[in-house]
Amino acid sequence: DNYFKIAVLPGDGIGPEIISESIKILDVIAEVFQYKFQFNYGLMGAEAIFKTGNPLPEETLKICKESDAVLFGAIGDPVFDNNPEAKVRPEQGLLRLRKELGLFANLRPLKTYASLIEKSPLKREIIEGADIQIFRELVSGIYFGEKFTDPEGEYAYDVCKYSREDILPIAHMAFQEAQKRNKKLTLIDKANVLDTSRLWRKICQEIAQEYPDVQLDYMFVDNAAMQLILNPKQFDVILTENMFGDIISDEASVIGGSIGLLPSASIGEGNALFEPIHGSYPQAKGKGIANPIASILSVAMMLDHLNLKQAADKLRQSVEHAIENKYVTIDLNSKQYYSTSEVGSFIADHI
Amino acid sequence: DNYFKIAVLPGDGIGPEIISESIKILDVIAEVFQYKFQFNYGLMGAEAIFKTGNPLPEETLKICKESDAVLFGAIGDPVFDNNPEAKVRPEQGLLRLRKELGLFANLRPLKTYASLIEKSPLKREIIEGADIQIFRELVSGIYFGEKFTDPEGEYAYDVCKYSREDILPIAHMAFQEAQKRNKKLTLIDKANVLDTSRLWRKICQEIAQEYPDVQLDYMFVDNAAMQLILNPKQFDVILTENMFGDIISDEASVIGGSIGLLPSASIGEGNALFEPIHGSYPQAKGKGIANPIASILSVAMMLDHLNLKQAADKLRQSVEHAIENKYVTIDLNSKQYYSTSEVGSFIADHI
Ligand SMILES: CC(C)[C@H](C(=O)O)[C@@H](O)C(=O)O
Ligand SMILES: CC(C)[C@H](C(=O)O)[C@@H](O)C(=O)O
Repeated sequence: DNYFKIAVLPGDGIGPEIISESIKILDVIAEVFQYKFQFNYGLMGAEAIFKTGNPLPEETLKICKESDAVLFGAIGDPVFDNNPEAKVRPEQGLLRLRKELGLFANLRPLKTYASLIEKSPLKREIIEGADIQIFRELVSGIYFGEKFTDPEGEYAYDVCKYSREDILPIAHMAFQEAQKRNKKLTLIDKANVLDTSRLWRKICQEIAQEYPDVQLDYMFVDNAAMQLILNPKQFDVILTENMFGDIISDEASVIGGSIGLLPSASIGEGNALFEPIHGSYPQAKGKGIANPIASILSVAMMLDHLNLKQAADKLRQSVEHAIENKYVTIDLNSKQYYSTSEVGSFIADHI
Repeated sequence: DNYFKIAVLPGDGIGPEIISESIKILDVIAEVFQYKFQFNYGLMGAEAIFKTGNPLPEETLKICKESDAVLFGAIGDPVFDNNPEAKVRPEQGLLRLRKELGLFANLRPLKTYASLIEKSPLKREIIEGADIQIFRELVSGIYFGEKFTDPEGEYAYDVCKYSREDILPIAHMAFQEAQKRNKKLTLIDKANVLDTSRLWRKICQEIAQEYPDVQLDYMFVDNAAMQLILNPKQFDVILTENMFGDIISDEASVIGGSIGLLPSASIGEGNALFEPIHGSYPQAKGKGIANPIASILSVAMMLDHLNLKQAADKLRQSVEHAIENKYVTIDLNSKQYYSTSEVGSFIADHI
């Protein structure tokens, strides 16, 4: 049917500003396509700590579990970043949510917009035509392994652990996506040093036999960090573990010209969460300069996920229309620019 | 006095080819400046495994410990990379050598060469004038923490551990280097997620008070991977842990136009080792196409370390002379290029 429950977590920094543009868009889509979205708002991150002491209040978790999809803004606050001894941190809320919802795969599609190619720090011939889909494992590895700091502050450790069950589902997902695309899958790891990386390599080698049409390559993460910039067009689908994926996908955002454009989807067995890949950008908070497009394109990924393909396509067209007509925020055009909400409205009007 | 014992470990892939150019250079320097270098060759890496079963034979370790400096080529072989179940690996030799010699700081200087700026995938205005010194911790962290793979291959883990003593020496070194440069130090970490990163942040905050003229900044590694490409000129000295340093410094190599140009020094309490940052590049082995400059500039760093500043400067000038006169290998100029040994000889002749 046409009724969807959406959990909305604006979060910190510019989160609330970009999320309200996404809601503006969803309201228009509901009208045009005759859907009904019920928005249930929840607290998460620094905001939630300030108000409840808990970065992920139980109420928020409940709202998310009962929804068809979660729309999330951004997380993080310099108050916590600059205090290495804070016991409670905003990011714990997001990490726990990912774990509780079982969001094992973070998908980050990367492409270039013809009208923005000049914005990239990379040369046109390097990036033109690049089209990469990154699969980052999201609920295991060093993010979720045992952590310890001794009370005297003399030492600390973090454990990176992976099991076969952590790797298999996302590896199959990445192979299947490669089949739908250019049939090339690159596993990024550090198998010359890490036991966990060798486990990833072994498992991918094993299941590769089920996907004989896909070419499986391996690349060490240090080399990959270089190759992504030297020749991004060599990549089709990238598969990698949690920490490497965090680094590689932020790095890869430069290919498209702006991190302000990049959406992501986090997919689990039942639930799914949609968020921009950029952070909470606290310096910009409340100034109306944040680029809402990454969040709006996350909405498009959410519509895809809810099987509302027509609406998703229309929304993507409207975003491209705004970019082509240079109806963009200051990060994309410092000479002539519009506010966060002007850009949101322009896109909404075109739908 | 003027007599130096140099341990020479050519290693794998293109290692032997580039090392023989470095020796050619050192022979000329010995003659011109009236020094005497005694070269003691040792096996390490895949070559050592094939010949002795051990990636770092005791004999090699002994040679290194008794020398004034170690000159190393490259390590790694696809035979091992593609076999996740190999028990002995070439890289273990290099890692053990770093540990045994206590080489806690890996220094990677980055700068751009005017005549090569066009070679970079990045736009001229982004990189022109960039000048970064990276300090990577080299003998702790996830590289050296406990590792485990269960016999059934169902799970594996790697432990990232840091103690105060691991962090202090390299942190002081980086602050002191910042004092000599533009007085800006950026600690790259993931303190919003990792306990070890919070320990790094805390210790750097503490000792920052001893360096009041240095501005200490923090940057999350995901953001840093992006900022290095968006705006490399914002960095002066970078300090980071082992794994992040591996990724970040290879990534940063794109700034200079070619990884084939970048040397590194690994410094310990007594010993020091000098190597190019590039790998063993097995596809190029024996073809005479490898760029010897990264290794030759590592020799310059070695001469600095041995306090032979005059020779080091002369050598750097000769390298710049070769680059300016386009006397370079195919990676730097695919239209007109010279072989590995022609480039080495050209530089040697200029000294
Ligand atoms: C906020 C932080 C914990 C998070 C991560 O590292 O996963 C973010 O950088 C991301 O990539 O979604
Ligand atoms: C060969 C490998 C073990 C090594 C590392 O990861 O340290 C290399 O990439 C380097 O950076 O020197």
